[in-house]
Amino acid sequence: MLYNLIAKLDKKLNFPVVKAHCDIPCKIYDPISAQIAALTMIRLVDLLNELKAKPSLTLDEQAQFLRLVNQKEQHGLKVKEEITIIWGDYIKTPQLTQYPELHDLVHGIMLASSQVKQYISREAALTLLQQVNRFAEIFWATKKVTTFTAVCPYPPAETLVYPKLQA
Amino acid sequence: MLYNLIAKLDKKLNFPVVKAHCDIPCKIYDPISAQIAALTMIRLVDLLNELKAKPSLTLDEQAQFLRLVNQKEQHGLKVKEEITIIWGDYIKTPQLTQYPELHDLVHGIMLASSQVKQYISREAALTLLQQVNRFAEIFWATKKVTTFTAVCPYPPAETLVYPKLQA
Amino acid sequence: MLYNLIAKLDKKLNFPVVKAHCDIPCKIYDPISAQIAALTMIRLVDLLNELKAKPSLTLDEQAQFLRLVNQKEQHGLKVKEEITIIWGDYIKTPQLTQYPELHDLVHGIMLASSQVKQYISREAALTLLQQVNRFAEIFWATKKVTTFTAVCPYPPAETLVYPKLQA
Amino acid sequence: MLYNLIAKLDKKLNFPVVKAHCDIPCKIYDPISAQIAALTMIRLVDLLNELKAKPSLTLDEQAQFLRLVNQKEQHGLKVKEEITIIWGDYIKTPQLTQYPELHDLVHGIMLASSQVKQYISREAALTLLQQVNRFAEIFWATKKVTTFTAVCPYPPAETLVYPKLQA
Amino acid sequence: MLYNLIAKLDKKLNFPVVKAHCDIPCKIYDPISAQIAALTMIRLVDLLNELKAKPSLTLDEQAQFLRLVNQKEQHGLKVKEEITIIWGDYIKTPQLTQYPELHDLVHGIMLASSQVKQYISREAALTLLQQVNRFAEIFWATKKVTTFTAVCPYPPAETLVYPKLQA
Amino acid sequence: MLYNLIAKLDKKLNFPVVKAHCDIPCKIYDPISAQIAALTMIRLVDLLNELKAKPSLTLDEQAQFLRLVNQKEQHGLKVKEEITIIWGDYIKTPQLTQYPELHDLVHGIMLASSQVKQYISREAALTLLQQVNRFAEIFWATKKVTTFTAVCPYPPAETLVYPKLQA
Repeated sequence: MLYNLIAKLDKKLNFPVVKAHCDIPCKIYDPISAQIAALTMIRLVDLLNELKAKPSLTLDEQAQFLRLVNQKEQHGLKVKEEITIIWGDYIKTPQLTQYPELHDLVHGIMLASSQVKQYISREAALTLLQQVNRFAEIFWATKKVTTFTAVCPYPPAETLVYPKLQA
Repeated sequence: MLYNLIAKLDKKLNFPVVKAHCDIPCKIYDPISAQIAALTMIRLVDLLNELKAKPSLTLDEQAQFLRLVNQKEQHGLKVKEEITIIWGDYIKTPQLTQYPELHDLVHGIMLASSQVKQYISREAALTLLQQVNRFAEIFWATKKVTTFTAVCPYPPAETLVYPKLQA
Repeated sequence: MLYNLIAKLDKKLNFPVVKAHCDIPCKIYDPISAQIAALTMIRLVDLLNELKAKPSLTLDEQAQFLRLVNQKEQHGLKVKEEITIIWGDYIKTPQLTQYPELHDLVHGIMLASSQVKQYISREAALTLLQQVNRFAEIFWATKKVTTFTAVCPYPPAETLVYPKLQA
Repeated sequence: MLYNLIAKLDKKLNFPVVKAHCDIPCKIYDPISAQIAALTMIRLVDLLNELKAKPSLTLDEQAQFLRLVNQKEQHGLKVKEEITIIWGDYIKTPQLTQYPELHDLVHGIMLASSQVKQYISREAALTLLQQVNRFAEIFWATKKVTTFTAVCPYPPAETLVYPKLQA
Repeated sequence: MLYNLIAKLDKKLNFPVVKAHCDIPCKIYDPISAQIAALTMIRLVDLLNELKAKPSLTLDEQAQFLRLVNQKEQHGLKVKEEITIIWGDYIKTPQLTQYPELHDLVHGIMLASSQVKQYISREAALTLLQQVNRFAEIFWATKKVTTFTAVCPYPPAETLVYPKLQA
Repeated sequence: MLYNLIAKLDKKLNFPVVKAHCDIPCKIYDPISAQIAALTMIRLVDLLNELKAKPSLTLDEQAQFLRLVNQKEQHGLKVKEEITIIWGDYIKTPQLTQYPELHDLVHGIMLASSQVKQYISREAALTLLQQVNRFAEIFWATKKVTTFTAVCPYPPAETLVYPKLQA
């Protein structure tokens, strides 16, 4: 019932902006922030696994442990935030028509971020990075910018999708 | 190529949690926060329209004007945040199967929030509220909680979807 | 000495707004946000008690433990924030005359929130919820909105004070 | 009804901590942060009044105008936050018995901060500072620290209550 | 006097970590976040200049104007924050010996960010970007990563310093 | 290459403001906020050491432990933030000429804050306080305000540098 009302309102209002490629202000979108956050989660999991390898933890190491878990939490929120900004502000009908997988991919990134926040699992963190990389790949394609993959120049030395830039 | 890799990983990892109904910690989800934020945007638009009706603004009124616009901005972000938390943490395969409109609805709420942030438009704000109400309706239905509609007990006295509670 | 000065200034300035029922912008106040935050603290205490029941915690469970404590901390701040906003913006002379207990009640909520933050105690969390419920009861009464009590439609299934709405 | 329940629970629980002078962690309370924030609001009002004195504002001056209003808003929130932390964490039965004016004073600071946020009024900002100074005076007295008043060593060169320190 | 004490303490403590190349946790530093924030400020200045070109602004355009100024403010803070994190956490004696200009450069970025926040000036924003680019150039050099310059793949299409990555 | 460009631009633009003593808005700078934050870190280390002295920790004490570490983290960020604001907004050529140690001192405070965040060390926290005190000493000297040292009127009862005020 309510939904019908929305449908009617949509017809009546017929916002042209919702279908446009770009709102003013045309924000500068770049998936690199989400990619770095996902990368950082892998790195934090690696450091947490170093602590897990020890037979027991001193109080100082426990303090370090909780700082790492807190940072993992923060970067999980950052992945979610950066991806939903691009999805909710930039992705519109044309991009969705071209890449119908986008809704599922973004939703999957939300769930995967929660996973990496809740567990100390390198595989979960790697899966998240790959989903974020896939998002970057699509994003640049919708901008008609070619991409390539390269190992990032810092630990944990994982592969990222980068835009090919004109020197 | 990357995407195939993810598909393979997904099979290998086969996280049971992603398909579960509820993560631990089972957060308490309630769409009322998003509904109040959407309602507040309508109220702020009403107050902005009162200022718009004046032939010119004193500096004091201009200060008030910018405080209202800033608050509208904040509540637009709050709508987005509250909805994506429920969508990204609670909504999983079972809910999506039951309500296939969910991805489009949530994405529509993102776009509508941006609209209300960018314009001083009562119609846009009303449309947003109705989408958020529809989200609340579905949310409670997935919880098997009956809903009803009622006028909220404060300005702007618009209709909200509420869960029917057992006294 | 200073205080006399203030008293004199008060007389001289004689702000009418301080005694008014409503500032412009008339924000939309609703104690439900504070109630949900108090409820969440009970839920988090329940989850913490599940961990306490185990003979020892793995590192993964310790990570979960600290995430729960951090969330309890956050929701304790939220209770305080939501209550002081209503108390500091909406509650004025007329409401205080009608409900002279309000200052003590709000101050008690501050102290109780700190308690729940500092201890893992279901009783402390329950006491906080009841104080917040009492605040809601008074708040709606000052608005001449009837209330009723009902069990909230999610864990921890505790009783909340709700406004009675017109369908 | 609910209230009776709380009263009973209070008796049953009988938290000793609520009546204690100091929780662990014994935070370091200092009203200077609230005093500086109140002082800053006066300074911002002075700068806003300089702009008000001009016949009209260029767009650059309008940008400056809104930056000043935003800062005034921020410092109003800071006054409220700093005062409620001390009131809600440190002020307990012994301090309230000694200074029964405390609840009214703190509540008055909330209302006064809102006033200074909503208007460009030097008198309102000065009144706020004096209330915050009175709070500082009482705070130090409960700590048995003597105070003195002095002009602060920066604009707007208003009088603050300071603790007398042992060289 | 105090300073001598510090000097003595430094000798006594002789923290090895302060001189090390890398603390654990070895955070992932990347100047791209600061570069994007500086770029965004240029873009926002461009959009503000479009509004400045109009003979007068409607209230809707004034709302847009203040949203742009607020965003410029936010990104100015972000530039400062991102640069001081790298400077304060990663830059230590070896990097300072190699690039003695670093303190002045970072301090200059702080001042330049404030400039861009305070004025609507494309030249100021461009100067800031170039200082941030210089910082990126040095940062990558200390990591022994070669850099190249390229036009960024979005408006305002300015030149950035990028690390050369291995495909 | 880039750097030369900046040098040229600097000449061309020749911002007078960068060399001025004071921007408008002339913010109210006071190092006391950074000093209180550094003091708080010492206090938190003292409370952490009390827990370290126990043979083992209950879960309730572990919760307290993590709250203390989190607070230490927060105050470490606050020290950095408060110092960089004064350094980046107020300290300009005249102050740097008079006190050439300023860049090194501020950079040292960044590194020392990180130390105190990473370790439970009273000596590290004390060193940080002394650097912050030295910064306060210089700050007040540039303002031509005499300073004195006194024991702060709360735990941990350490010595602070205070401005000498006119009664």
